[in-house]
Amino acid sequence: MNSFVYDIPTKVYFGEDQLKFLGEELSKYGKKVLLTYGGGTIKKTGLYDKVVAEVKKAGLELFELSGIEPNPRVASVNAGADICKKEKIDVLLAVGGGSVIDCTKFIGAAAFTDGDAWDILTEKTIVEKCLPIIDILTLSATGSEMDSGGVISNPETKDKIGMMYPVMQPKVSFLDPTNTYTVSKYQTACGAADMLNHILEVYFNMNQDLFMLDTVMEGLMRTILKYAPIALEKPDDYEARANLMWTSSWAINGFVNGGKRQAWSCHPMEHEISAIYDITHGLGLAILTPRWLTYCLDETRVAKYYQFGVNVFGIDASLQPMEVAKKSIELTSDFLFKTLGLQSTLSELGIDSSNFEHMAKKSVAGGLAYAFKPLDESDVVNIFTMCL
Amino acid sequence: MNSFVYDIPTKVYFGEDQLKFLGEELSKYGKKVLLTYGGGTIKKTGLYDKVVAEVKKAGLELFELSGIEPNPRVASVNAGADICKKEKIDVLLAVGGGSVIDCTKFIGAAAFTDGDAWDILTEKTIVEKCLPIIDILTLSATGSEMDSGGVISNPETKDKIGMMYPVMQPKVSFLDPTNTYTVSKYQTACGAADMLNHILEVYFNMNQDLFMLDTVMEGLMRTILKYAPIALEKPDDYEARANLMWTSSWAINGFVNGGKRQAWSCHPMEHEISAIYDITHGLGLAILTPRWLTYCLDETRVAKYYQFGVNVFGIDASLQPMEVAKKSIELTSDFLFKTLGLQSTLSELGIDSSNFEHMAKKSVAGGLAYAFKPLDESDVVNIFTMCL
Repeated sequence: MNSFVYDIPTKVYFGEDQLKFLGEELSKYGKKVLLTYGGGTIKKTGLYDKVVAEVKKAGLELFELSGIEPNPRVASVNAGADICKKEKIDVLLAVGGGSVIDCTKFIGAAAFTDGDAWDILTEKTIVEKCLPIIDILTLSATGSEMDSGGVISNPETKDKIGMMYPVMQPKVSFLDPTNTYTVSKYQTACGAADMLNHILEVYFNMNQDLFMLDTVMEGLMRTILKYAPIALEKPDDYEARANLMWTSSWAINGFVNGGKRQAWSCHPMEHEISAIYDITHGLGLAILTPRWLTYCLDETRVAKYYQFGVNVFGIDASLQPMEVAKKSIELTSDFLFKTLGLQSTLSELGIDSSNFEHMAKKSVAGGLAYAFKPLDESDVVNIFTMCL
Repeated sequence: MNSFVYDIPTKVYFGEDQLKFLGEELSKYGKKVLLTYGGGTIKKTGLYDKVVAEVKKAGLELFELSGIEPNPRVASVNAGADICKKEKIDVLLAVGGGSVIDCTKFIGAAAFTDGDAWDILTEKTIVEKCLPIIDILTLSATGSEMDSGGVISNPETKDKIGMMYPVMQPKVSFLDPTNTYTVSKYQTACGAADMLNHILEVYFNMNQDLFMLDTVMEGLMRTILKYAPIALEKPDDYEARANLMWTSSWAINGFVNGGKRQAWSCHPMEHEISAIYDITHGLGLAILTPRWLTYCLDETRVAKYYQFGVNVFGIDASLQPMEVAKKSIELTSDFLFKTLGLQSTLSELGIDSSNFEHMAKKSVAGGLAYAFKPLDESDVVNIFTMCL
């Protein structure tokens, strides 16, 4: 069993009516706040006004960067870093989903470096410091609110690169389930697919690890299966939104990993799809997940599928392992495409095979030789092809 | 659903061969280290020598307080605080189980206050600061390695008082399962009973809360049921010791509580037993737990027992809820007294009913009116009597 370091210092205010602590938390880090957000949904929902009121009440000076894209781009990172340098920003306040928080992490890092922020993603520049980050989450999906990583796109080079630095870990996250009431059915479904895949990437693993963490992962997955359909049906169901929100954080904050050192599989592949076609990350993962599970299934790996099928889907434990395994993939597929209603093929998104070889080559660079089932370029092309 | 704040900043080095990071972590806080430990088992096992070697290698100055008792006493807190003040200690290094870590927390707090440390426990003195604490855990049980609380006994007044202050949260904990290989069968069993009770105190709750946290608690309980017998049978089974160790931390670090605000039941009662009779905390909890579960069972609460029985013990879900509930208590009892082999009655420990009324009165002051089933003095006497 591998040793590991657990280090998740983010403080979380979970629930309604916690925004009254925002000013106090921001004030710990200084006077000048850069508020970062996306396309302006927070203005429509009224969250923007509430946030600004709290910041003003605390006597802090407010600056703004709006328009951060889904699949956030390096241009936004550079724009934010410029404001930080020019205005001598003390603390960043990200209000949004994973894209806004990811982008804000790299803004905080780029505030201390010279030149193009893309140099951070290509590791030409090493991150040593980051401005303190506080966030208010509005979408349950990526888990960026409780981890130290982020993913940035560069449309010029068609690259999408993820990176983690402990200094980018948010200091404080405000998780109010009511802030996700207005999330569309489609984004709710993509979020559920995203968090489910985060757990599967860790759960399907050949490293020996802690049984207790497997039980936690199985519980988190059962939570997603139970509450995603409720949130789709009734977007303002507090219990459903709360369970999905806290699960999204714990799916990827590092706790469930324990000593597992294996590379992830679907994420490197999906990043290549969305780098070129700019699709929603969770949708790309949903399409890949059952094909990847199918492609990796063999006698050496069947035991994990059996455990998954029995403990997550409640499949009859007395059936043959291979039968349970196949049934578990079928039920995963049904959940993603029937229950969540997500599109099930790349063809439906207008994506053909023309870039598969190029995308496979770049995916493999993400460490796929060290994945649950080691994958080379031809394996990845095969999986992409299964997704057509 | 209640809102809550999640804030567990302790960094954990989990696994073998992590002690090489001890010097680096201690050095972050200063040069003068006070090493605290118990009766000297760590000298027999060789851990003491390893720790001293790491401290010396880092060029730090070492001071010592040994002899911290099981059910640690306020005299040890005072003795430790005196050393801190006299030697201007920068950082505390607790090596031991919950008793040593608990005591060290109050040493760290009392280092900043005047007068008798007992004033902290009686709330005459409020804790505002604490010396930084790093610990090396040698017993999986109390979870003190990842929370901000501790319990101190005063033999003169026959009081045993627990208290939490965020500043007492350990900065870093070293959790090496091999350090628990030498824990006796009896202490291993008491530790398992302790952590099981920590979860039950939260799980049996009438507050509405997050389903996802219930799934986590059920997973942690199944982990204890699976691995405690293995650790009893084979004390150097790494997998068993590792699962029990990480489970003990997560049983009580606050994560599983979520928004549950209910008072605990068995702990206030057990503290009164061990305050007078100085028994092992986990043993007292084991004796109380099934009686408390039996006493609280009624139609308004049966649903929680049903969930427990089905999801933790795998009892047939098609049975009547009350039948599942009774069976779940029986299986809990079997686990504690047959599988773990713990003594099952107070009489076996030489405890009679002579102090029950006095103990009940003090237990109730622990907030039992706000417990899973609200309990008054006569209820507590009844539960104590069931334990004879």
